[in-house]
Amino acid sequence: MIYFDNSATTKPFDEVVQSFTTVATQYFGNPSSLHGLGAEAEKLMTKAREQIAQLLHVQPKEIIFTSGGTESNNLALKGTALALKSRGKHIITSSVEHASVKQACLQLEELGFEITYLPVDCTGKVNIEELQKAIRPETILVSLIHVQNEVGTIQPIQAVGEILKDYPKIHFHVDHIQGIGKVPLSLNKSHVDLCSFSAHKFNGLKGTGFLYVKEGTILWPLLSGGSQEGTLRSGTENVSGFVSMAKALRMTLEKKEMVLPKIEEMKQFLQKELQKFEHVVINTPEDSAPHILNIAFEGIKGEVLVHALEEHGVYVSTTSACSSKKKAHSDTLEAMGVPEQIAKGALRISLSWHNTMEECRVFLKALESCVNMLNKTMRRST
Amino acid sequence: MIYFDNSATTKPFDEVVQSFTTVATQYFGNPSSLHGLGAEAEKLMTKAREQIAQLLHVQPKEIIFTSGGTESNNLALKGTALALKSRGKHIITSSVEHASVKQACLQLEELGFEITYLPVDCTGKVNIEELQKAIRPETILVSLIHVQNEVGTIQPIQAVGEILKDYPKIHFHVDHIQGIGKVPLSLNKSHVDLCSFSAHKFNGLKGTGFLYVKEGTILWPLLSGGSQEGTLRSGTENVSGFVSMAKALRMTLEKKEMVLPKIEEMKQFLQKELQKFEHVVINTPEDSAPHILNIAFEGIKGEVLVHALEEHGVYVSTTSACSSKKKAHSDTLEAMGVPEQIAKGALRISLSWHNTMEECRVFLKALESCVNMLNKTMRRST
Ligand SMILES: Cc1ncc(COP(=O)(O)O)c(C=O)c1O
Ligand SMILES: Cc1ncc(COP(=O)(O)O)c(C=O)c1O
Repeated sequence: MIYFDNSATTKPFDEVVQSFTTVATQYFGNPSSLHGLGAEAEKLMTKAREQIAQLLHVQPKEIIFTSGGTESNNLALKGTALALKSRGKHIITSSVEHASVKQACLQLEELGFEITYLPVDCTGKVNIEELQKAIRPETILVSLIHVQNEVGTIQPIQAVGEILKDYPKIHFHVDHIQGIGKVPLSLNKSHVDLCSFSAHKFNGLKGTGFLYVKEGTILWPLLSGGSQEGTLRSGTENVSGFVSMAKALRMTLEKKEMVLPKIEEMKQFLQKELQKFEHVVINTPEDSAPHILNIAFEGIKGEVLVHALEEHGVYVSTTSACSSKKKAHSDTLEAMGVPEQIAKGALRISLSWHNTMEECRVFLKALESCVNMLNKTMRRST
Repeated sequence: MIYFDNSATTKPFDEVVQSFTTVATQYFGNPSSLHGLGAEAEKLMTKAREQIAQLLHVQPKEIIFTSGGTESNNLALKGTALALKSRGKHIITSSVEHASVKQACLQLEELGFEITYLPVDCTGKVNIEELQKAIRPETILVSLIHVQNEVGTIQPIQAVGEILKDYPKIHFHVDHIQGIGKVPLSLNKSHVDLCSFSAHKFNGLKGTGFLYVKEGTILWPLLSGGSQEGTLRSGTENVSGFVSMAKALRMTLEKKEMVLPKIEEMKQFLQKELQKFEHVVINTPEDSAPHILNIAFEGIKGEVLVHALEEHGVYVSTTSACSSKKKAHSDTLEAMGVPEQIAKGALRISLSWHNTMEECRVFLKALESCVNMLNKTMRRST
C-alpha cells in the first residue's frame, strides 16, 4: 500500500495509541472528581496541556481541548460571532476555506451576520490590501486558513497579523490544521487570537483537537455545562485522547527538522516527473506547503483516477476527504480560476514522514499506466 | 480500591479498549475518503451505527455520533432553539437538570429565549399537570432528564411523551445519560424526538456519545462542515471511538438482566444499613434508579467525607463530578427542598456491575469510622 492521502488523515503513531490505551485503562477517573482517581486524570491532562503550550510558545490556559478541527473552527467562528454580536456583525474570510469554516459562515449569515469572502489570485492567495480595505468598524472577526488543504497554498498570515494588530477588537482566527508540523507559524508574531488544530492530521487520534484561545479573547461556548476548559468547552474530558494528542504533537515537531526536507524532496521530484506527462496541469503553486501536490489530467475525472490508482495499491484523493463524495467540483480551484473541466480532474497527493522516494517512483509508474489506460478507453468511447 | 463513583465515570470494558486500539491502528482511513481505506472505516462505522440502532429499536440514520453527553445535550437544545426560533422562543425544562442542559438554557436566555424551569417535589419529580400548563403556542422544546444524576430520581418520561404526542411541533428531548442500561426507556413509546447518550457512563470511552434524532426532527448544527452524520454533526469521525461505543452499549445491555438485580440489592442493603447511622438523611427517593444513593450526615461536609473515605480506599462523590469542585451546594437538592445544611453534606454513592456486597460491607465500616472520627473532631472544635 502506498498511502498518499495524508491530508485526509494520518496513521496514528504506535506510541500515541499505546499512550491512549494506558491512560484509558489505568487513569479512567473523571478529572473533575474530588478524589485521587480524578486528581490523577487531571494531572495527566494538565501535563498534556503544558506540553502543547510549551511546544507552541503559549500559555497552558490558552489551550482549549476539543473533539477535532471542525469543532475548533466552529467554536472560533460561532463563538466569536455570538459573543461579539452586539459590537458588530461583519466577518472577513477567504473563498478557499475548509468546509468547516465555509459552512459555519453560511450558518452565521442565516443568523444575520454579513460575511466578506475575499477572492484569491491564481495561486490561491488573498490580497493583503483587499483584506485591509474590507475591514469595517463593525468587523469582529478575520478567519483565514494557513495551509490550504486541497492545493497547499500558504496564506500570508504574519502580514495579515501585522495589519490586524492595529485592530485589537477584531478576533484573528487561523485554521492551522494542515500547517502544523509542515509550515512554521508563530502565533505570537502573527498576533493570532484563535488557532485551530486537529490531532488526526499529525499522527494523533481522530476525535481530538484543540483551539488556541489567546488570553482575554471572549467566546460564546458552543458546548456549555460543567465548565471544563475554562468554561469555553464543557464536557467530561477525553483524557486519554488529549494525553495522546500531546504526544503526537511532540513527536511531530521533534521529527520535523529531519522529515520536512525529505517530504519537500519527494514533492519536487513528483512535480518534476509529472510535468513530463501529457495534458497534465499542476494546480499547486510554487511557494506552497511541502506535503500537498494537486494535479489534473484534462479529460480524466479525478474520481476515476483515484479508483484506477487504488487497483495499484495507491491511495490518493480528489479534494478534501469530506467533499470528495459530493461530486461537485472544488470551490477552491474555482476561486483560483481553474477551468471547470480541469477542476473536475483534480487529484490531490499528500505526503507524510513515512513516505519514500521509492513509493514516489512506484506511484509515477502506476499513474502512467492508469492515465494511458484511461486515455485509450476514452478515445475508444468518443 | 472500592470505586463507588460510577455516575461520574466508569472504567471502560477491556474489550472496548481493545476494539478502539484495533480500529485506530488497522482502519485509520478517513470514512469520507473515496478509496478502499476510507470505505473500510466507513463500513465499520455503519455497522456500529446499525448495532446501536438495533439495540434501541430505532433507525440507523437516527443515530448521530457526537463527542459525548454534553455535546449531545447542547446540540439538542441549541440545535432546536436556533432551528425553530422563527416558530417560537419558549422552552420547558426542569429545575433538576444536568449542568449541560442548565447552562445551555442560560445561554439561550441570553439570545432571547424564554425558559420555564419546572419545579420538582421533594422526591425530585416534575408534576405532569404543571408541565402541561406550561405549554404555550410558542413552545418549541421540552427537555427533561430521565434519571437524575445526583439523586437517582426517575422522571415520568412516558407520561410526558403521552402529552407531547398531541404537540407534534414541540421537540421532546430526554437526557438519558444516567438512565441507559439502568432504567428502561422506550424511545418509541415515549414519543421522544431527541435523546442524549454518553459512552463513558456505560463503560465506553470518554469523548464519545450520540444523540438520537428522530427522523424529520430539524436541528441547527452546532458543528458544521464536511456534512458528516447527515449534516447534523460535521467533523472527521472518531471511527475507533464510535465502534468501541457500540461494543460498550451491546455489552452493557447484554449484562443488564444479570447485573441490575445485583446492583439493586446492593443499594437496598446500603440504604437499610445506612438508616442505622445517627443523623443520616437519605436524599434519594424510594422509586429511584438502582445505582444511585444520595445521603447526608448533618454537620459533616460532603467534601470532607469524600476525602476521609478516600483514606480508606473508597471513592465516592458529593454531587455530579463537574460541579464537585465549585463548592456551591447542589441546585438539585435545593429544588427538592432539602435544607442547605443537609445539602452541604451530600454524598453520592453510585454503583456499577463490578461492585460487590463485600465492597458494600467494607464501605459501611469505613463510613462508620470516618463519621465517628469527624463527629469527634467537630465536637472538639465547637
Ligand atoms: C484545513 C482544514 N480545516 C479543518 C479540517 C477539519 O478537521 P477535522 O477533520 O478534525 O474535523 C480539515 C480536515 O478535515 C482541514 O484540512
Ligand atoms: C445526566 C447527565 N447529563 C449529561 C452529562 C454530561 O455528559 P458528558 O460527561 O459525556 O459530557 C452527564 C455526566 O457528566 C450526566 O450525568
